Amino acid sequence: MLRNQKEELQALQDTLYFIGGKWRLPIINSICNGNRRFREIERSIPGITTRMLSKELKEMEMNKLVKRTVYTDTPVLVEYEPTEYCRSFGNIITEMINWGKKHKKIVIQK
Amino acid sequence: MLRNQKEELQALQDTLYFIGGKWRLPIINSICNGNRRFREIERSIPGITTRMLSKELKEMEMNKLVKRTVYTDTPVLVEYEPTEYCRSFGNIITEMINWGKKHKKIVIQK
Repeated sequence: MLRNQKEELQALQDTLYFIGGKWRLPIINSICNGNRRFREIERSIPGITTRMLSKELKEMEMNKLVKRTVYTDTPVLVEYEPTEYCRSFGNIITEMINWGKKHKKIVIQK
Repeated sequence: MLRNQKEELQALQDTLYFIGGKWRLPIINSICNGNRRFREIERSIPGITTRMLSKELKEMEMNKLVKRTVYTDTPVLVEYEPTEYCRSFGNIITEMINWGKKHKKIVIQK
């Protein structure tokens, strides 16, 4: 089995860099789970601040992870939708959820 | 499809918490790829500092992610081996490598 370890490490580090801090994947998860409005997303992620969510959503819009739509009714409605790119994190998120469930006891002990 | 979204988010956040910063997964990957000695691991991960690797390996030993063996020959030889627990990150790492390879162009553009 000859794998290119250097290339793999680079790919791993690119992904980690892109995921960044602790909030991006929970936000992606929330939006992919059907939450569309700012307050919905905020409520679905305990511990996130309004400021952090706002900052992340702006970056995610720039990176084409979410599509932001403004409905100019009264009151104005803003919705965030996941792009295909956003959904490309599905496998990573699934594996992380699996790991977290399996190792719940271990993590709690710490 | 009725999933427990709250439980899933908790599992996701536990995993993210456990993975912590940007170095733990590359170190796990390196050790699981067969690197055993401190300098080998260090050389396999561009950008990591001696201090950071030392700190991470200590934490990983405490968390039973690696087994540290000291061979008291002359010169003293220290080896790090992956535990089963360490290998439990395999799927997450694989998915991250897949994502990184697939989205190489996008990440580079940023």
